[in-house]
Amino acid sequence: MSESSQTIAADRDDADVDALRARIRQAAEAVRERTPMAQSFTNFVTINLVANAQLAAGGAAAMSFLPDDVVDTASMSGADYINVGTLLPFYKDALPKIARAFRKTGHQWVLDPVAAGIGSTRTEILRAFRAAPPTIVRGNASEIIALATMWGLISPDDATRPAGVESVDEVEAAVEPAKALARFLAASAPEGEAAVAVSGEADLVTDGATVYRLPGGSPMMAKITGAGCSLGGVTAVYLAVTDPLTAALAATALYDRAGEAADKVSNGPGSFQVAFLDALWNTTPDQIAASEILTV
Amino acid sequence: MSESSQTIAADRDDADVDALRARIRQAAEAVRERTPMAQSFTNFVTINLVANAQLAAGGAAAMSFLPDDVVDTASMSGADYINVGTLLPFYKDALPKIARAFRKTGHQWVLDPVAAGIGSTRTEILRAFRAAPPTIVRGNASEIIALATMWGLISPDDATRPAGVESVDEVEAAVEPAKALARFLAASAPEGEAAVAVSGEADLVTDGATVYRLPGGSPMMAKITGAGCSLGGVTAVYLAVTDPLTAALAATALYDRAGEAADKVSNGPGSFQVAFLDALWNTTPDQIAASEILTV
Amino acid sequence: MSESSQTIAADRDDADVDALRARIRQAAEAVRERTPMAQSFTNFVTINLVANAQLAAGGAAAMSFLPDDVVDTASMSGADYINVGTLLPFYKDALPKIARAFRKTGHQWVLDPVAAGIGSTRTEILRAFRAAPPTIVRGNASEIIALATMWGLISPDDATRPAGVESVDEVEAAVEPAKALARFLAASAPEGEAAVAVSGEADLVTDGATVYRLPGGSPMMAKITGAGCSLGGVTAVYLAVTDPLTAALAATALYDRAGEAADKVSNGPGSFQVAFLDALWNTTPDQIAASEILTV
Repeated sequence: MSESSQTIAADRDDADVDALRARIRQAAEAVRERTPMAQSFTNFVTINLVANAQLAAGGAAAMSFLPDDVVDTASMSGADYINVGTLLPFYKDALPKIARAFRKTGHQWVLDPVAAGIGSTRTEILRAFRAAPPTIVRGNASEIIALATMWGLISPDDATRPAGVESVDEVEAAVEPAKALARFLAASAPEGEAAVAVSGEADLVTDGATVYRLPGGSPMMAKITGAGCSLGGVTAVYLAVTDPLTAALAATALYDRAGEAADKVSNGPGSFQVAFLDALWNTTPDQIAASEILTV
Repeated sequence: MSESSQTIAADRDDADVDALRARIRQAAEAVRERTPMAQSFTNFVTINLVANAQLAAGGAAAMSFLPDDVVDTASMSGADYINVGTLLPFYKDALPKIARAFRKTGHQWVLDPVAAGIGSTRTEILRAFRAAPPTIVRGNASEIIALATMWGLISPDDATRPAGVESVDEVEAAVEPAKALARFLAASAPEGEAAVAVSGEADLVTDGATVYRLPGGSPMMAKITGAGCSLGGVTAVYLAVTDPLTAALAATALYDRAGEAADKVSNGPGSFQVAFLDALWNTTPDQIAASEILTV
Repeated sequence: MSESSQTIAADRDDADVDALRARIRQAAEAVRERTPMAQSFTNFVTINLVANAQLAAGGAAAMSFLPDDVVDTASMSGADYINVGTLLPFYKDALPKIARAFRKTGHQWVLDPVAAGIGSTRTEILRAFRAAPPTIVRGNASEIIALATMWGLISPDDATRPAGVESVDEVEAAVEPAKALARFLAASAPEGEAAVAVSGEADLVTDGATVYRLPGGSPMMAKITGAGCSLGGVTAVYLAVTDPLTAALAATALYDRAGEAADKVSNGPGSFQVAFLDALWNTTPDQIAASEILTV
């Protein structure tokens, strides 16, 4: 690529990012004005933080585990969130049933494939989602790679073994799997749009075409349980008011800014979590929209 | 009504409220002295806050989901608390079974009909409670209206549609349903006494005859998950030491005072919840008993 | 015993305790360096605190309830933790199955026999663990006595009735049951070593031969839910890097020091829990190892 074509590409990127920033600001304002409700089917470890983070980010929360309850509530929910941690036996039937119900009505949802690749029940559930996929997937690098492999979107040779709920893979290793996954989700989406978010030292968001990197956050986010899970829940709140790419970028940027704010005033993981919830509440749409977003 | 009869009525109300204040103070002192245990069968989102609020209010907590466990523990529990959020499939049999066991022994309990009207499983469970009812029901306006309608205590024309875990109805719309519900509960109660508490901007408590309004609290109580659920648990702690009306009034007044105290020292929902638990611990029986209680 | 033989015994005790202190310091350093993962199958009330305490203490956490998931994750887990609070119906088969799988591979685990003696399902599960026992048991005095009785290790005449999740027995009443339990566990352990920890005003730890008493902590630890449960989880983190006796002593000492630190800066149970998690994070290996350990 010649020097001038590089400059043109960079200019186009800048224009794209500027347009994204405007959409992110609008979405953040819409969440604060409309208090959109996002329902969650999520794990027992961090379910309280998911709800509190959704409220602190400006949304409303509802949590359910029974298909009849979830489907009833979904009619009042702007988007749903499913997180496959701490599975119970009946989830094997309940979760695929719920995903099929969402697909039937075109209801949008966010998946957190926690610990993808571990346990036969989880694998069975995640495989079933391939036929009724979410609009956004958010996970760590290992989970994104495991899910993309499980769905046959990348060669098993590109995959690594699962490592529990902690990622053993660097975010960069998940770039191609994340793009493949986003393209697959978009092809299945009613409006043809989807996104994948990979959490790590520098978070990554992609719509399958462009890869966005969001630096920042705090290392303390890995020292409280549920930073990732609750980001999934907040992403669903944003998905209730905007498109998948904007939702994933806005929620991720909000988390990075709130993490930095909490880092400054805390003295350990206890006070960090308290300050983080306060920061989710106090971070403004302007601050979220001003976040660094790299396309290189 | 003539001016003088109004004055007489107001004087009688004042005397009633003074007597109530004395009972509220006694109840608050008894909780601090006796550490009464209240067992809970409650939802997974706010179960930790329910237990911590019960401890902070001066009581003791135990949580169970199996009928054999619940019935065994009930013999050591001053009163029980049942909250129908986040249902699992086996609750459909377990919860009515537990309610029937409580009825058989005259064991008192508090019901929070979370999301009443949503989902066929929840409706089936709440309908079953009609034959073995609680001593106190605490909910938001929409939930109280839905439960009173479900039990045939008010005309469906007076009811509104459910709105998830957030109330869509104003507290005032629930006055008549709450009174009808309280009268029904009292008629079923071993000692002929019951109460209904409706949470909202100005909380309402009734024994079926008189309606009491308790102003105060903090708008931040709606920005943490579980303010209502944990009030139900603390109401059960109070029910272990006093009559239903006093228990509902005392617990509601404590929540309003603690909410105001937390509001003054917090900077968002994270620090609000921390300060709220501290305030439950630090609010004195005198402060609780001095709460504004309106009968007009 | 003559005066000089007493002095010799005291000197030997001092030498033993000095050796223990060195092992405690090494273990605390190893946890900070290696971030060992401990998987938990634990109750819904305090599951979030268990995970956050494990992270704050320097470890990593994973929580599961399905045998296939637990057994898969155990291969990545240094030690497991099982807590029998808030049982669900399927645990009756799942928990004994998991214990047998651990026994087969020699995988070490910590048991918290919450509310031992209450409910037929819990009793059935705890009885089943006799054939596939843990490496460490941690509980309050009543729970330790109930478990030792249930397993036929002490005469029922020495036992007292259960009292829910709160202990009705003093720690001293559990000395002989705790020693008998520790000897039974050690006899079943692959490496012949085990420990029992009894939480109370002065905590007690024994390997079946020697009884160690650790004074300290804070009365506020009884005013938050999960101080005991999360100590079980942190003990599993330590068991991942050291022998059972050192693990039980180190985790208990850490809890006592963190409780004291939190006591100084808190204003009620809300701020106590926040400060306690911060203190778990900030307490140094030297501070843990310098804890008072009495053998008299």
